[in-house]
Amino acid sequence: MNNQKVGILGGGQLGRMMIEAASRLNLSVTILDSPTDSPAKQIESTQQHIQGAFNDPAKIRELASQVDVLTVEIEHVDADVLAELETSSKIRVCPSAFTVKTIQDKYNQKQYLESFGIPVSAYVDTPDVESVKRAGEQFGYPFMLKSKTMAYDGKGNYVVDSPQKVEAAVAALSKTPLYAEKWAPFVKELAVMVVRRANGEVRSYPVVETIHKNSICHLVIAPAQIDGAVAKKAQSIAENAIKAFTGAGIFGVEMFVMENGEILLNEIAPRPHNSGHYTIEACDTSQYENHMRAILDMSLGSTAMKVPASIMVNILGSDSDMQACYKPCQEALTVEGATIHLYGKKECRAGRKMGHITLVGESMMQVQRNLAPILQAIEPDIQRSLTLRPLVGMIMGSDSDLPVMKVGAQILKDFGIPFELSIVSAHRTPLRMVEYAKSAAERGLMAIIAGAGGAAHLPGMVAAMTPLPVIGVPVKGSSLDGVDSLYSIVQMPRGIPVATVAVNNSTNAALLAIRILGASIPGIQKQMAAYMEKMEGEVLTKVEKLDHVVSEGTF
Amino acid sequence: MNNQKVGILGGGQLGRMMIEAASRLNLSVTILDSPTDSPAKQIESTQQHIQGAFNDPAKIRELASQVDVLTVEIEHVDADVLAELETSSKIRVCPSAFTVKTIQDKYNQKQYLESFGIPVSAYVDTPDVESVKRAGEQFGYPFMLKSKTMAYDGKGNYVVDSPQKVEAAVAALSKTPLYAEKWAPFVKELAVMVVRRANGEVRSYPVVETIHKNSICHLVIAPAQIDGAVAKKAQSIAENAIKAFTGAGIFGVEMFVMENGEILLNEIAPRPHNSGHYTIEACDTSQYENHMRAILDMSLGSTAMKVPASIMVNILGSDSDMQACYKPCQEALTVEGATIHLYGKKECRAGRKMGHITLVGESMMQVQRNLAPILQAIEPDIQRSLTLRPLVGMIMGSDSDLPVMKVGAQILKDFGIPFELSIVSAHRTPLRMVEYAKSAAERGLMAIIAGAGGAAHLPGMVAAMTPLPVIGVPVKGSSLDGVDSLYSIVQMPRGIPVATVAVNNSTNAALLAIRILGASIPGIQKQMAAYMEKMEGEVLTKVEKLDHVVSEGTF
Repeated sequence: MNNQKVGILGGGQLGRMMIEAASRLNLSVTILDSPTDSPAKQIESTQQHIQGAFNDPAKIRELASQVDVLTVEIEHVDADVLAELETSSKIRVCPSAFTVKTIQDKYNQKQYLESFGIPVSAYVDTPDVESVKRAGEQFGYPFMLKSKTMAYDGKGNYVVDSPQKVEAAVAALSKTPLYAEKWAPFVKELAVMVVRRANGEVRSYPVVETIHKNSICHLVIAPAQIDGAVAKKAQSIAENAIKAFTGAGIFGVEMFVMENGEILLNEIAPRPHNSGHYTIEACDTSQYENHMRAILDMSLGSTAMKVPASIMVNILGSDSDMQACYKPCQEALTVEGATIHLYGKKECRAGRKMGHITLVGESMMQVQRNLAPILQAIEPDIQRSLTLRPLVGMIMGSDSDLPVMKVGAQILKDFGIPFELSIVSAHRTPLRMVEYAKSAAERGLMAIIAGAGGAAHLPGMVAAMTPLPVIGVPVKGSSLDGVDSLYSIVQMPRGIPVATVAVNNSTNAALLAIRILGASIPGIQKQMAAYMEKMEGEVLTKVEKLDHVVSEGTF
Repeated sequence: MNNQKVGILGGGQLGRMMIEAASRLNLSVTILDSPTDSPAKQIESTQQHIQGAFNDPAKIRELASQVDVLTVEIEHVDADVLAELETSSKIRVCPSAFTVKTIQDKYNQKQYLESFGIPVSAYVDTPDVESVKRAGEQFGYPFMLKSKTMAYDGKGNYVVDSPQKVEAAVAALSKTPLYAEKWAPFVKELAVMVVRRANGEVRSYPVVETIHKNSICHLVIAPAQIDGAVAKKAQSIAENAIKAFTGAGIFGVEMFVMENGEILLNEIAPRPHNSGHYTIEACDTSQYENHMRAILDMSLGSTAMKVPASIMVNILGSDSDMQACYKPCQEALTVEGATIHLYGKKECRAGRKMGHITLVGESMMQVQRNLAPILQAIEPDIQRSLTLRPLVGMIMGSDSDLPVMKVGAQILKDFGIPFELSIVSAHRTPLRMVEYAKSAAERGLMAIIAGAGGAAHLPGMVAAMTPLPVIGVPVKGSSLDGVDSLYSIVQMPRGIPVATVAVNNSTNAALLAIRILGASIPGIQKQMAAYMEKMEGEVLTKVEKLDHVVSEGTF
């Protein structure tokens, strides 16, 4: 497919998954890493790989002499050697030495991002103990003291919760230069993978939620179960951040969402990232394949999800033995939609990333259910409750409609369908109605139920401003016995349909919404079929009872 | 995950894709094949692989001495050696030597399947020229003369179209024993992958359609765009066939569908199969991973598709050069949902399988559209029109409803939604209605539009027998101005919803069905949004016209 030879600095799991993608495209890739049997080398035998440290200048130069493109699976490399090679040789370095150098120093990274208008939390340089104390006065306590370099998986971070802790913090992180960061009381952590070609073209993957445990990535939830507008903002910040750098390749962008919806960029990884592992099973093109395409200046692949929902869980090593890692994997073997990735690491250490499991499914409800037994094997003492984005919106013109509508809401609840319930009045809050209808599809809703009475305009007006199916419930008013509501809802002009149900019958509106979801979600269609069977059974029981009464003559 | 060591006879592309799956589970796999750089060996460097022919008894014994489980990626192996190893050593052979031996002789295979009641086309042994002539008299012309052994990709098959061709046919296939088979004028070729554990547990993948070109697999369409009842029958025949054998592993079952819906089993491959490549991107667990799980007696993975639609296209070698193979791949780089698999074969020969491309997508319409430019690069002179299974069913109580309903049908057509149109009367054809409603979901429909007038029972009765969303169109009769139809359709009892639209408004019924599809198919939702924008634009143009008329005073 492409005759350029690629060299990778580092042969860990990220290199391994790059190799998986590269082999399928028959690309030539040579790996520089110390172990002869590093995870990446285990699955690549067409090249003579180089044995040595990925930050050894001589070895990097040796690798560079054999390839056309040099890339990294870790940012803690000797960026000066990369810069030297960029100018002295014909090879391309991806991403650029400048990008690697800027990002590997987190203080520089923040300064650089800020200069491009990317929102980051407040920070200050702290060359000595005194300046750390001043940071405490400026930011208040707690604040974060951070190593500028060589930081990963929470290593190099220290929470300073009082002036008395300053000296201990500085001592603990004494090996590297430090800076202080204002505490960011985030409500969720988000991440976006962005792939960039050398010409500046970027494509971003969906926004995911990341859940950390002991500062190490634990779960990645795709798509993030958040408001669509927040997701859009996060994606745009991530894209703009990566546009600010130079060179080609994939980047992981980690962000915080604050309570008020504000988004702060936390940090960037100039390489494939743990929060993008899910893309192998869940997206059209994996982060690894898009990285290879980007560094070889080939067309980028689609970054869209090909399944409705996915969750990735990391398999970390324990101090005991390998068997502890295998327990959740054994569990995953019996779980629908679970794919196990083990990295071939021979030695197991506490906290070491040994593998990951990606679940995909027809809905986030299903994926969360399927995740439960795997999480149970990893953390038997923890009960996690993960959020679900609503799939059905139920709105009504007035709180006086609630007694009618709540019966339908209960049905949605019984079926386990995540939904939202609100008052939106066509006549009293027309602008709110416009905003609700216009944003509904982007927010992830798949159907809207609208109840209204009298001159019942809500369902039809919402339907006029969304491409989603809208179900109308005519609510009976004090006059005309509901006929006014029914006609107002059902007699829509050609072009804008409202799926109208019987007067006051919010039960049927909910069941119709569930049937609509079931049209593409087999598990929900099965639930509906079971519901119908149960209903039939209940009526047949009544038949028997009546037969009994009749035959006993007590009728 | 599993400490048993696996040995594979053969290191071609099927072995390569087995290795991909095995590496992710950290399984130990050793390959026996002649080239030192065979496709499978290229991506496995943790073992000392064996160099030699996969049918060399000494080499097979050498491999067997190093492993716990022996499996094959090709059935043309020395089954007697496998049988000997099964009894003399502790290793397990997967599938069993008996199964390989029975299947590798296609005449034996047919006899064996027939003895288990599996439908196959008529066949007869033809040990000499005379018996071939008698076969011609028995079956009529044309009939197939087939090699019993060593047949693949159409090699070993000869179409005998007249008595005069008998001797040429026998001469052409003189290297192997022969049998004759009655001509099967099939309408489609289907295939099902079935995975079997040693205890007899089987799981089958969805039924796919295969399209061959020069007797070599060209396209695989998943799921097959056929009637759900036929698919169910095919799946059951495939499962029963594999239950009849012994041993563990994955099997490819190829079948013919005749014009009358009859299904004949054509042949079985006791290994991963070209018709199952699509499972890597399109199913919860790939055929390769399930093969590894089966032979190691691990839990089988889900065989369900995780995407709505997929098509695989083979990349065959040409006599010219490698660049010809890369042309469709270059095209695929720019196609959404396309994944390229190249097998690392150094030599390119006409008809040699060099790789494949799998497309996945949100709908079969999308996948067919996306396939077009890739097919164009492979066969610029051929226009293929692939079938689409209907997604919407449109039915009406009487042909007198057609003038009203056909307006909606036109909308579906304009949007490119595959649909079916028929008359189903609740009162005059109640049993047909029951069958239609009961089979609708299984047949692949996602929504039903039912039009009826007067005592309009059709929509509600259909809704009572399907979990699908049913849209009701009240058709105005000669009295009561449509109110009778409207009330009969909309006033459904709690439990069974009908999505009712305005009287005679089949346009809105069609648009509602499209919105329902769009709830899970982003491309269709985009089409709907564009339709609504166009409608708005048209009205605004009328506004301008009227403004003009008013300002000119010609009003």
